[in-house]
Amino acid sequence: MEAGKSPTAGKPIRCRAAVSRKPGEPLEIEEVTVDPPMPHEVRIRVICTSLCHSDVTFWRMKDPPGYFPRIFGHEAVGIVESVGENVGEVTEGDVVVPTFMSDCGECEDCKSKKSNLCSKLPFKLSPWMPRYETSRFKDLKGEVLYHFLFVSSFIEYTVVDVAHVTKIDPAIPPSRACLIGCGVSTGVGAAWRTANVEAGSTVAIFGLGSIGLAVAEGARLCGAARIIGVDMNPEKFEIGKKFGVTDFVYAGNSDNKALSQVINEMTGGGADYCFECVGLASLVHEAYASCRKGWGKTVVLGVDKPGSQLTFSSFDVLHSGKSLVGSLFGGLKAKSDIPILLRRYVDKELQLDEFVTHEVVFEDINKAFELLIEGKCLRCVIWMGK
Amino acid sequence: MEAGKSPTAGKPIRCRAAVSRKPGEPLEIEEVTVDPPMPHEVRIRVICTSLCHSDVTFWRMKDPPGYFPRIFGHEAVGIVESVGENVGEVTEGDVVVPTFMSDCGECEDCKSKKSNLCSKLPFKLSPWMPRYETSRFKDLKGEVLYHFLFVSSFIEYTVVDVAHVTKIDPAIPPSRACLIGCGVSTGVGAAWRTANVEAGSTVAIFGLGSIGLAVAEGARLCGAARIIGVDMNPEKFEIGKKFGVTDFVYAGNSDNKALSQVINEMTGGGADYCFECVGLASLVHEAYASCRKGWGKTVVLGVDKPGSQLTFSSFDVLHSGKSLVGSLFGGLKAKSDIPILLRRYVDKELQLDEFVTHEVVFEDINKAFELLIEGKCLRCVIWMGK
Repeated sequence: MEAGKSPTAGKPIRCRAAVSRKPGEPLEIEEVTVDPPMPHEVRIRVICTSLCHSDVTFWRMKDPPGYFPRIFGHEAVGIVESVGENVGEVTEGDVVVPTFMSDCGECEDCKSKKSNLCSKLPFKLSPWMPRYETSRFKDLKGEVLYHFLFVSSFIEYTVVDVAHVTKIDPAIPPSRACLIGCGVSTGVGAAWRTANVEAGSTVAIFGLGSIGLAVAEGARLCGAARIIGVDMNPEKFEIGKKFGVTDFVYAGNSDNKALSQVINEMTGGGADYCFECVGLASLVHEAYASCRKGWGKTVVLGVDKPGSQLTFSSFDVLHSGKSLVGSLFGGLKAKSDIPILLRRYVDKELQLDEFVTHEVVFEDINKAFELLIEGKCLRCVIWMGK
Repeated sequence: MEAGKSPTAGKPIRCRAAVSRKPGEPLEIEEVTVDPPMPHEVRIRVICTSLCHSDVTFWRMKDPPGYFPRIFGHEAVGIVESVGENVGEVTEGDVVVPTFMSDCGECEDCKSKKSNLCSKLPFKLSPWMPRYETSRFKDLKGEVLYHFLFVSSFIEYTVVDVAHVTKIDPAIPPSRACLIGCGVSTGVGAAWRTANVEAGSTVAIFGLGSIGLAVAEGARLCGAARIIGVDMNPEKFEIGKKFGVTDFVYAGNSDNKALSQVINEMTGGGADYCFECVGLASLVHEAYASCRKGWGKTVVLGVDKPGSQLTFSSFDVLHSGKSLVGSLFGGLKAKSDIPILLRRYVDKELQLDEFVTHEVVFEDINKAFELLIEGKCLRCVIWMGK
């Protein structure tokens, strides 16, 4: 055994996982085996993980890209247990945040300041590891368990490609750092990196879930003067205030004015930036219609059903001077931007504590699903224990 | 009569106009009367005017926004004959370029650097003067003649709102300056102001008519390294070379690869900027699909049929990192940007001469229509004579 090497390095690990065996049914905590990391891969002991809506969306999905049995979870913090060949970037004992987005550092996109869409290991809805299209998980009967979003963190030990791993400051509380793996980064980044919100501007956010609230937080950090939150749930306004939301539009009056009309009137012609955080094509149109002509920018963050389409009048596009852009992982480059965001948390600029509304132990993971589905929580952190 | 005032000031002027009485039928040169300018208006003696595709599009249009009888023409240079009350910006004898876009200088948009969409006199497809919604033209039987795009330059004297007039250096040849009133500005501005093409980048232009060639010219001025022209007419490549087009894609092989596939292969993943200059929704999709993921920008310049729609996969928008934006008048602010473009022409940076392929006298205006429709000309300048 080499110095510093974990006694388990190179061997399969038997540990507990919350396995999702059937769409929409409670996860089952069971013993599984986790293979050692292949070259360019890292095996991580998960410290804690938080539940994101995308976990729920794919957990419910009966057909591909829904796959079962599967290990969900993609917002996490862990400690590197061992590394495969050709991994120099992290080593045993490092604290890391895995991400569903790759940042290989070598391709044209990763080298460019303008893109966060790695070409070498591009994002896709795959049930495998990104580099080899195989699984590192098996149940005790030998059946393969599928990966989720290249992370799979509802398990005590997971394997992640090194391009999907960012080393972080170990002093940062893991229950806060895990949030930066997906949802909060996506929202904050959309305001900061994708839209580059100008100080003094007006922002409208459609949907005040964690992503929308994180957009508000990002817009607040960018110095937005007015942050309009739109939601079906009036309780979201009080929550929103904590993240800088200054105005609230109740979206539940279907017999009333269009949301875009309300926002156009409130702002005297539209918001400078509109963010769609729900994943409804119809809401993207409202967001676009709520943007200021001449310079308004609509940022799409929400994931709609596969096959859904966005339709715009050709005349409107030509004559409005508005722009439309999608934002995946908030336009962030994981390895350079995650440390910046966590530094801003340490410096008490970026709020993370307020997102964590619940914490449960691993055995109670299904409780986290219930809380999120009932709309009672922003982020529920699941502790792996020991 | 005040010093410097034209003897015709304040009175109707009887002069010749090329009146379009029925959709798609030859214009008729006839005597008409032109009322004096109302407050904030300017009466202009047209020196020359050029024919743009938009004239042809609306001349063919049987239903609103097609209106008849009408005086078309919207690319022109003229000399101020007289001004209405409250006009301080120009005076009798000034050489001016009228524009279909207003630049009032007072509204939030005109004061902002980010918008060229005047809110005070917004662009619309109106058959009237912009401020009073009335006409200044009558035929000799007293029938009202409609305006076109707030300019109507196929006439010896026209009336234009002062917000639609830019004073220019009288030393600039009018047959060149008139081009800057619409088409060339739209193309050059789309590359320069709307897209802000980066030096060294790759540009793809769908449609090498005057607008597309002007985009090439603008991209060339911005220092684009590669300018790919796409057209159904292979002859356009030779013409395109004069404006900086470096590569040509023939769009006529309908049984072949999609244009986007060809461009993706040529560029190793897509162009940095794509410009749709034809006005076909299907081509906007090809342009969007031809853009580099991560940072590609698609600029829509073409005017499609009223009611046409642009449809995008919600997944593509979210996952591509591409942006989509429309460009009206190339994002230019008439009163500040037209002088810059004309200065660059004088300095031999911006090419204008090459756009003028034909010149005719006013009586031969229908010849200009034939040439443009047959695809035999870029710009035909029509001289009013005397």
